[in-house]
Amino acid sequence: MVSKVTTVLLLLQLSGYFVSGKCGKVLVWPMEYSHWINMKIILDELVLRGHQVTVLVSSSSAFFDVDQPSLITFEIYPSPSIREEVERLFLEAITKWIYELSELSFWTYFSRLQELVWEDSAYFESLCKDVVLNKKLMTKLGESRFDVILADAFIPCGRPTTLSETMAKADIWLVRTYWDIEFPRPLLPNFEFVGGLHCKPAKPLPKEVEDFVQSSGDEGVVVFSLGSMVSNMTEERANVIASALAQIPQKVVWRFDGKKPDALGSNTQLSKWIPQNDLLGHPKTKAFITHGGTNGVYEAIYHGVPMVGIPLFADQSDNIVRMMAKGAAVRLNFHTMSSADLLKAVKTVITDPSYKENAMRLSRIHHDQPVKPLDRAVFWIEFVMRHKGAKHLRPAVHDLTWLQYHSLDVIGFLLACVAAVTFIFMKGCVLCCRKLAKTGKKKKRE
Amino acid sequence: MVSKVTTVLLLLQLSGYFVSGKCGKVLVWPMEYSHWINMKIILDELVLRGHQVTVLVSSSSAFFDVDQPSLITFEIYPSPSIREEVERLFLEAITKWIYELSELSFWTYFSRLQELVWEDSAYFESLCKDVVLNKKLMTKLGESRFDVILADAFIPCGRPTTLSETMAKADIWLVRTYWDIEFPRPLLPNFEFVGGLHCKPAKPLPKEVEDFVQSSGDEGVVVFSLGSMVSNMTEERANVIASALAQIPQKVVWRFDGKKPDALGSNTQLSKWIPQNDLLGHPKTKAFITHGGTNGVYEAIYHGVPMVGIPLFADQSDNIVRMMAKGAAVRLNFHTMSSADLLKAVKTVITDPSYKENAMRLSRIHHDQPVKPLDRAVFWIEFVMRHKGAKHLRPAVHDLTWLQYHSLDVIGFLLACVAAVTFIFMKGCVLCCRKLAKTGKKKKRE
Repeated sequence: MVSKVTTVLLLLQLSGYFVSGKCGKVLVWPMEYSHWINMKIILDELVLRGHQVTVLVSSSSAFFDVDQPSLITFEIYPSPSIREEVERLFLEAITKWIYELSELSFWTYFSRLQELVWEDSAYFESLCKDVVLNKKLMTKLGESRFDVILADAFIPCGRPTTLSETMAKADIWLVRTYWDIEFPRPLLPNFEFVGGLHCKPAKPLPKEVEDFVQSSGDEGVVVFSLGSMVSNMTEERANVIASALAQIPQKVVWRFDGKKPDALGSNTQLSKWIPQNDLLGHPKTKAFITHGGTNGVYEAIYHGVPMVGIPLFADQSDNIVRMMAKGAAVRLNFHTMSSADLLKAVKTVITDPSYKENAMRLSRIHHDQPVKPLDRAVFWIEFVMRHKGAKHLRPAVHDLTWLQYHSLDVIGFLLACVAAVTFIFMKGCVLCCRKLAKTGKKKKRE
Repeated sequence: MVSKVTTVLLLLQLSGYFVSGKCGKVLVWPMEYSHWINMKIILDELVLRGHQVTVLVSSSSAFFDVDQPSLITFEIYPSPSIREEVERLFLEAITKWIYELSELSFWTYFSRLQELVWEDSAYFESLCKDVVLNKKLMTKLGESRFDVILADAFIPCGRPTTLSETMAKADIWLVRTYWDIEFPRPLLPNFEFVGGLHCKPAKPLPKEVEDFVQSSGDEGVVVFSLGSMVSNMTEERANVIASALAQIPQKVVWRFDGKKPDALGSNTQLSKWIPQNDLLGHPKTKAFITHGGTNGVYEAIYHGVPMVGIPLFADQSDNIVRMMAKGAAVRLNFHTMSSADLLKAVKTVITDPSYKENAMRLSRIHHDQPVKPLDRAVFWIEFVMRHKGAKHLRPAVHDLTWLQYHSLDVIGFLLACVAAVTFIFMKGCVLCCRKLAKTGKKKKRE
């Protein structure tokens, strides 16, 4: 459940004066880290098409590149929280999820996960309060007459709510997956699957990276990253990984920000940051070792690269299991894997041709859409602005109570009818019997 | 149920050698009348894009314009049936549906409808046999190595089957509706809603029709047609309609092929055939009196024209009820309506502005799609050819038994587990009690 909430974007229509053909005003309620990377692609496209985009950012946020030149307006609202504390909060939560939860049994995992979410939700609630209780800001936002809210429904704001209540509030749901990752299942017409909207063809690599990649010869390279939130790990784990990678004939580009592992092979290059999409799209790339974040998995699908998945937290396990089921990945456990396990996994996805074939099949499915995911995302945001919502796609279920949804009111009424008829029939029978009995007695007396 | 079966097209993938970018071979299993009008739009587009399209047509078919110049190949297979008989069969079935079924109560309607379908299914079965038992034809088709079958799933062919069994056989379902007609409901990812794919901007009218339309002045015109299968009716009904139309200030273009009604007004022009789409798209058109066939309703939606619906058979009632619910139509009963009823209905949809507003709203929804319905239909046919199917969109439910679908096997196993545990626990308790009882007795004796 959690993983699915983290991969949706919510479009909620506000009153406004958007006229077809003209440009609209978009208010954005974002999330940080990889969610922001993904959402910014949409916002840049909206700006490019002439829309005014305003992003609400807390002064405590440590992750937005507000200073980068951009046509997006960042509305920074004051917050009593301190940047460094928030960063620590995020990293602590991730660390707990990766290390503490991994040791729990199936039965205790979810209750501890819920506790963790509760711990962090205080911060998210404070963000909401910083906005809603800021009268000056609220007045300014109200006067701005936005046409649409584009919100990342990562953590629900305003009081405790349910998934279905949240779902009912959006006109359109932009889901960050597609039928390459998803298994076919029923969907509602206001769901638009726009997974991989951030993917694009590879650009040329920086010269030193290109030289390193070219030095791999026919063997090619392996790309390794655990995502934007995890670039460090314990020395022990780093050495297990390094010694496995040292044994493969490929060159390795490893995104890593810690102490250089002693077991590091000469074929492996460490880097604080890597041009991941350009590397995955390079013809010499043979495999991708990934934590299974949606953005990375989609870049691998886009370029048709088989994966070794080492999921850490959130929806990463789920993503990797899907890639395994579709034959494009091998999964490893970050905490228990040995060098031999990792070596075997990397060799398997490179030498067994089925992994490359399946990755290419997913890539073909991903590329073969009538409209590109980014264009569809922007289309539906503009649609909501043009039509002041998308009421024709809103299922009536959102307006039904639980009783009505399961037709219990109808069933109850029918049962009451049956009961009434049965009661009247029985009463009638009893009366008839009595009358007959009386008549019988009378006749006997006569 | 029936109405939904009649509005879908089935795409079934065959083994073949279609290569992306090249042109493919399409085998078509069509239906007659309005279904064919709709499907031919897709076939013409496929031919335009360079695909080879072969349509299987029975020699007994009275409705295909095989002689019309076309790049479509018509594979005419011999049939012992006689053209005139088939035409009679169709018209008889329609007449029974319109007149006989209309007099039945809700409870007897469906059983009689099923009887009617059974009566006609013998003819459809004979069509299938004419193809399947024709060894020469089957060899020719086999050697042709088609890439895809495009079939109208109007009547299932090969033995009695179910809707879900039929659904499981297609890679993609092209559904002849969209969210302008449909109410939002869950759908499967291999459903593509391409309703209105035949709609196009209005062409200029023939001079004499344009002159008649212009002569209406500011009052405008009303277009009236009961579809491609019904162009005649009883004299009594024709006069009821004619006298109503004679009383409206608009001019009327009525598609009618019977004896000129005595009550016909000077404002009404009868015609054996009308350029319906061009008339509906004419700025002077104020309303459309229609039987509610999908093609006509979509032309009205496309051009934003409010409707008076007089449904006759099949899915027409269903379509009109939807248009009523969306505020773009008024419904009448063909058999019981009086002149006053018709007059009131036509006046209502013309003078009450909400009907025009709602028709325009549906029109805006229809026009505002990321890809036009026809292009989407062709895209998915080409997709099935390029990828030899669309297996990534096929829900697993099609491969489950009824027991598995409802998880009865899992529930059964869990219940068995609970029963076993309960049994063992009870047995244990009984044994313990006995032992305790024995010990107690022993102690007492001691």
